[in-house]
Amino acid sequence: MADALTQLKERFARITDLERISRVLSWDQQTMMPPAGWRHRGEHLATVRRIHHETLTADEIGRLLDEVGELDPESDDGAFVRLARRDYEKAVKVPTELRAEMTLTATEARTIWVKARAESNFELFRPALERTYDLRSQYIDCFDPIEEPYDILLDDFEPDTTTASVTEVFAELKAELLPLIAELKDEEVDDSFLTGTFPIDAQERLAKEVVALFGFRTDTWRLDPTEHPFASGAGVDDIRITTHYDPETMKSFFSTMHEYGHGLYSHQLPRHLERLPIGGPCSLGIHESQSRMWENLVGRSRPFWEFFYPRAQEAFPEQLRGVELDGFLAGINRVKPSLIRIKADEVTYGMHVILRFELEQDIIHGRVAVPDLPEVWNERMHEYLGVDVPNDAQGVLQDTHWASGSIGYFSTYLLGTVMSVQIWQKIVEDVPDLEEQIERGDFAALRAWLGEHVHSLGRKFPPQETLRRATGSTIDPKPYIAYLRAKYGAGVAA
Amino acid sequence: MADALTQLKERFARITDLERISRVLSWDQQTMMPPAGWRHRGEHLATVRRIHHETLTADEIGRLLDEVGELDPESDDGAFVRLARRDYEKAVKVPTELRAEMTLTATEARTIWVKARAESNFELFRPALERTYDLRSQYIDCFDPIEEPYDILLDDFEPDTTTASVTEVFAELKAELLPLIAELKDEEVDDSFLTGTFPIDAQERLAKEVVALFGFRTDTWRLDPTEHPFASGAGVDDIRITTHYDPETMKSFFSTMHEYGHGLYSHQLPRHLERLPIGGPCSLGIHESQSRMWENLVGRSRPFWEFFYPRAQEAFPEQLRGVELDGFLAGINRVKPSLIRIKADEVTYGMHVILRFELEQDIIHGRVAVPDLPEVWNERMHEYLGVDVPNDAQGVLQDTHWASGSIGYFSTYLLGTVMSVQIWQKIVEDVPDLEEQIERGDFAALRAWLGEHVHSLGRKFPPQETLRRATGSTIDPKPYIAYLRAKYGAGVAA
Repeated sequence: MADALTQLKERFARITDLERISRVLSWDQQTMMPPAGWRHRGEHLATVRRIHHETLTADEIGRLLDEVGELDPESDDGAFVRLARRDYEKAVKVPTELRAEMTLTATEARTIWVKARAESNFELFRPALERTYDLRSQYIDCFDPIEEPYDILLDDFEPDTTTASVTEVFAELKAELLPLIAELKDEEVDDSFLTGTFPIDAQERLAKEVVALFGFRTDTWRLDPTEHPFASGAGVDDIRITTHYDPETMKSFFSTMHEYGHGLYSHQLPRHLERLPIGGPCSLGIHESQSRMWENLVGRSRPFWEFFYPRAQEAFPEQLRGVELDGFLAGINRVKPSLIRIKADEVTYGMHVILRFELEQDIIHGRVAVPDLPEVWNERMHEYLGVDVPNDAQGVLQDTHWASGSIGYFSTYLLGTVMSVQIWQKIVEDVPDLEEQIERGDFAALRAWLGEHVHSLGRKFPPQETLRRATGSTIDPKPYIAYLRAKYGAGVAA
Repeated sequence: MADALTQLKERFARITDLERISRVLSWDQQTMMPPAGWRHRGEHLATVRRIHHETLTADEIGRLLDEVGELDPESDDGAFVRLARRDYEKAVKVPTELRAEMTLTATEARTIWVKARAESNFELFRPALERTYDLRSQYIDCFDPIEEPYDILLDDFEPDTTTASVTEVFAELKAELLPLIAELKDEEVDDSFLTGTFPIDAQERLAKEVVALFGFRTDTWRLDPTEHPFASGAGVDDIRITTHYDPETMKSFFSTMHEYGHGLYSHQLPRHLERLPIGGPCSLGIHESQSRMWENLVGRSRPFWEFFYPRAQEAFPEQLRGVELDGFLAGINRVKPSLIRIKADEVTYGMHVILRFELEQDIIHGRVAVPDLPEVWNERMHEYLGVDVPNDAQGVLQDTHWASGSIGYFSTYLLGTVMSVQIWQKIVEDVPDLEEQIERGDFAALRAWLGEHVHSLGRKFPPQETLRRATGSTIDPKPYIAYLRAKYGAGVAA
């Protein structure tokens, strides 16, 4: 028995290594690789993925899983076997040809999408998107029939989470967000100082300063510029975050704090389990709870800027010298419905996600056809945010997710955002002087709490169980709504 | 038949991908990786190597090779099958455990060597070196017995090349080099201006300028700083060279030109064959012929500096303003016996290599015992170069090769140097105005010649056949000796 378990662990250590190697290759591609290297890189990533798939679906894994059987689910070994079985059973259900087809279509669709977005031409992208949804239907058909087929897609990003449970959370949010947005959308807030001249070298120095303050160390982390920011890495001691410096705004500063949150999660995962699936991150939602926390609950808060604002003023004297802290805080927290999800403020952000979550299901269930997507998109944007979409580039073509075949991904952004507030409230209970610590630029207790209560659990439990162990509750939109009302509601921002 | 051949090619494409992935991971480790990432990286490289070994030694490869049989050796397919069979047969002869032991010992020995060199303590390194040689003996025993066991080690670096043939070349060189060194070693040449203040940013600009002049393009190449310079890459369109800037000398400039030569070879390998063994570089000797050519035959020549010296003076005005071109050329070509191989001039360099080539065989044949190595080393350094070795750090511990288990590697440095002059003479025949082109900073014809006559052959033929096709002759030390005599002999340098 012990022997089969050991063999199983060795095989999954190899699988983890292959995933991490892919990540290093992708990081390199997006930060360092000479542009013409893309063809080689495509081959190398495809080879790693094929070997990963062959290794995960080897008959011997099935045999070892049978031999090991079920172990105590509360033990690390029991959780490992549960996850190994889950990953194996999901992988073997999907024929190699379909998986290859999905990979190939995603690569092609992404290239077409780049062009279509540049030209704001949905028709150009439409056939690739239809093919993507068609392949997703075939993917769903690989699994045992269930009542809600969208559950299968969601499970790839937020495991053990049902569409019904997400819909329930989002319905509650929607009912609160729509009136709040209506209430706030016409408020006059000056944020003109956030556009202008932000020299890139000053941005880079400030980014390095803030992450160093948070806990970034050069022996284990890197921060590099890239086109589309992301966090990656090769293990707990090799964390790589990226950011995109735009010389006209300081928005990269918030993006850097966001990626730091992802990076810290990866850095504090359980070291002794890190080559097994149990040592990985729990879900995209939990991951996002960490990034949104550092970006918003820390990075857009008064205590943080009490400490940090003089440094920002020193970095960008021309832009910020004449702006008082109150005005700066109002500016970075301005609520204004807009077209682009990734530029949205905390209040309107949720509706961008809900719109995508609903549209994906509408297509899967045949309520909306792909050719009608731009029209439906634009109608809903008007309904939810009161904005008129001038073209598809700023509408239905804005995100890369569908082009990459990631259907079922979007909801994790909002689930994470909601969970970030639940976790934050628990931290404030456990660390009553958290605000004072942040006001003096001390983040050690915050990091330690997250490490102990969230990060060190790795992937041992499903996301809702992880949240329950960290906070005492599964997902609940009320704290998030209360947070938004308290921060932005009438009588506060006014 | 075609089907078995296609399958064989697919398997070898995967093997090539795995080798290139290893190279990207190693490049990253030496240029970008946060230092604490070494533990993850060791695991990832070991995993890639294990998968590489399993893929190469799979029974199915043997079966496909049997099915394909022998093909026309002049055809690309015939050469591919010959190389595939060679690589497979060498790999299957070595038990997995021995290979793992060699990898592990190399990793450990390298760590010990770093410490031993820092402390100049050979005794600390001795057990690891004995173990390394012991494992190399076991490795030799895996193959059919042959008269000269060192041939087996040499073949890993310079395929299809015998110890006897190298010994013959080196004997002729030694007979000429020893008197030439004796003749030149006491000449007074002022090279004091090569030590002083060379700001790193100016060095970096000049390095980028020279490689751009040679043919480096940013869409396909990178140049980065590192501790120990090397050339690497992920394919013909992803070439990565590195250099080490020392603020007190401009020696990195010559090292950069050296690595450019390696890079250009990799960049001009046959594009349509590049995922097969036939599309790789021919041998370490041929590789070195390219790097030594750009470093010495171009980079230490009068025509090159006629063009480039004003730029170097502009980059380092404090050091070079008062130095005339003649004085500069004399300084960078000064012959002076010294302790360290990688700092040696063109004339004394060969004796450093010959010493190592002889010592390796002395140990393999039991004529010298590992514990006696420092003493023998120091005696021979005195005999060959007239220098007294003050400590083992500057003597027997100076190179990393033995620590890394690379026994049989060194001779390729001198073989490559000798071949570089043979190739150069042929280019001068074919491109009669080569000097004038270089004097105007034009390297297009040189690159094209190398591409057509050397690089595009890839690994299709063994190194000596490659050289014969490029120059009409197999290796011959006479042109190299004549070159040294003409450039450095009495009446020229005097």
